Amino acid sequence: MKKTRVAIVGYGNVGRGVQEAIKQAPDMELSAIFTRRPKKVSNEVNDAPVFYTASSSQLESVTADVAILCGGSARDLPVQGPMFAKHFSTVDSFDTHFKANSNAYDVPEHFAAMQAAAIRNGHVSIISAGWDPGIFSLMRILFDAILPGAHLYTFWGPGVSQGHSSEVRKIRGVKDARQYTIPIDDALEQVRQGKTPDFTARQMHKRIVYVVADKGADKERIKQKIISMPNYFEPYDTEVIFITAGEMKKNHSSYPHGGFVLVSGMTGEGNKVVLEHSCQLVSNPEFTGSILVACARAAHRIYQEGMRGAFTILDAFKYLTPHSGEELRKGFI
Amino acid sequence: MKKTRVAIVGYGNVGRGVQEAIKQAPDMELSAIFTRRPKKVSNEVNDAPVFYTASSSQLESVTADVAILCGGSARDLPVQGPMFAKHFSTVDSFDTHFKANSNAYDVPEHFAAMQAAAIRNGHVSIISAGWDPGIFSLMRILFDAILPGAHLYTFWGPGVSQGHSSEVRKIRGVKDARQYTIPIDDALEQVRQGKTPDFTARQMHKRIVYVVADKGADKERIKQKIISMPNYFEPYDTEVIFITAGEMKKNHSSYPHGGFVLVSGMTGEGNKVVLEHSCQLVSNPEFTGSILVACARAAHRIYQEGMRGAFTILDAFKYLTPHSGEELRKGFI
Repeated sequence: MKKTRVAIVGYGNVGRGVQEAIKQAPDMELSAIFTRRPKKVSNEVNDAPVFYTASSSQLESVTADVAILCGGSARDLPVQGPMFAKHFSTVDSFDTHFKANSNAYDVPEHFAAMQAAAIRNGHVSIISAGWDPGIFSLMRILFDAILPGAHLYTFWGPGVSQGHSSEVRKIRGVKDARQYTIPIDDALEQVRQGKTPDFTARQMHKRIVYVVADKGADKERIKQKIISMPNYFEPYDTEVIFITAGEMKKNHSSYPHGGFVLVSGMTGEGNKVVLEHSCQLVSNPEFTGSILVACARAAHRIYQEGMRGAFTILDAFKYLTPHSGEELRKGFI
Repeated sequence: MKKTRVAIVGYGNVGRGVQEAIKQAPDMELSAIFTRRPKKVSNEVNDAPVFYTASSSQLESVTADVAILCGGSARDLPVQGPMFAKHFSTVDSFDTHFKANSNAYDVPEHFAAMQAAAIRNGHVSIISAGWDPGIFSLMRILFDAILPGAHLYTFWGPGVSQGHSSEVRKIRGVKDARQYTIPIDDALEQVRQGKTPDFTARQMHKRIVYVVADKGADKERIKQKIISMPNYFEPYDTEVIFITAGEMKKNHSSYPHGGFVLVSGMTGEGNKVVLEHSCQLVSNPEFTGSILVACARAAHRIYQEGMRGAFTILDAFKYLTPHSGEELRKGFI
């Protein structure tokens, strides 16, 4: 079997997770790494050539079936998406969910941009393919399809939120910060028992922030800045804990995460149904890497079937598996 | 929007569950019920015409987009599948999993039979579309695709197994019986903690059988017959409890069920990942009915896209939802 050749774009935690996941997938191979720091990265990496992300001529020189875009949703993907879709099929984990009252570049807009780029250049682009959005999206769509109108709930954590951590790091006097999102057990249990409450944000999640402060910084001011931050912390009960740089390094250097999608509904005349999906991840970026690699397999299979354009993981679902229909009917159905 | 017209074939518990699920799906409508007892059923039903299952001329007289086949896997579906696929697209919950050392008419064989019938008559047939096989199959395929080679586990229960109950009812001296399959908590917890044991059947499930014995029957003989029954009970720890007909009616008249699919694996160099899907159902046949109705929607959409032949729920997945791609990208991704 000819392996699917993958280029990694962005060599941070997720990029490294993709590299590990490729090693675990016998049908995939790494063909190149694109990074903004090619000198540094080429010293670390010995299983693939390393190129500079922003060089068009280097992009053209690489042969790969799929480029996995590991950059961030706010600044990287709006630029890198269309740029790499010129040369490759792509997969990304774009994660700015649509919000009716926001002007952010969001999932529908990214879909439209990637649809245009992929169609124009004859490629396949799968967007928003992590665990949420991604696997959790699949669950929400599936649960809603089976139980129309039932109540869907998504809980995140316990785990580190990069977005929240980095907002805290922007506060004056903060040297380092790590934010843990914690689902509230009582809320989860209510849904598991088949109840259908309308929760506020505060009733579903709480937040714990570990902060290393600059020497002499006003800790009370930092704490107030954090807990009153709109959207990020104000709607939640937030605990702020000051620790030393040594404690941060020792206890908060990994990226665990997890989450839950539940639907609570009824069949017939009042018979309860609860469906749940959950994940527990010791390494969030590595798990995201594993999903991205399965989606790279899907992107290339969709491409080989002659389809072109942008797709979500819903369209990609049947192409994620490396097994044939016959194997699936014998071993998995 | 034109509604998808559904015929129900077989008016037992699952057939009634389908009827209820159609009421909850605004895009679906019931157009006919086929049953072996048309006189009796037409007295109960007032929202659709009732026909005799085995009458070819009555089949031809019915207009429906999809026939949902609610019969059993052993005797009904091998006959009714090809028969109804002549006139309609079909959905069934055929559930005899492939076993390498068995001559049973199983999933691969049913797929082949329905593929031939659906292609020959220009229809779409989705097979094995309940919760297991069905939703649980989707989870096994998805989890395996993301974490190749990781350990998959399926637990069933707590809930009533119809197959086991009916085997017990065949024993001389047994008037009625209800069998509960119970997952063993300790085994589930081990997997949730990221362990990957090789369980025996006995380590994953136990069985509890409630029996109403005939007057004067030898209860010890019945108990021994049950617990030594190969495949069904011998590989498990089985508790047999004799009760009265009144107790059976009062405490064991419903069909609760549930189950768990888990994968326990690693990313990178030894970082644990556990993914889990579970369902808790007060009414197993009604939930099965809800899935069958979502699959009927999928079958008709696949048909409208011009495809023909047999499909599993994996192929059907993206067609289960009633929502457009745009709605999904705004509300579910």
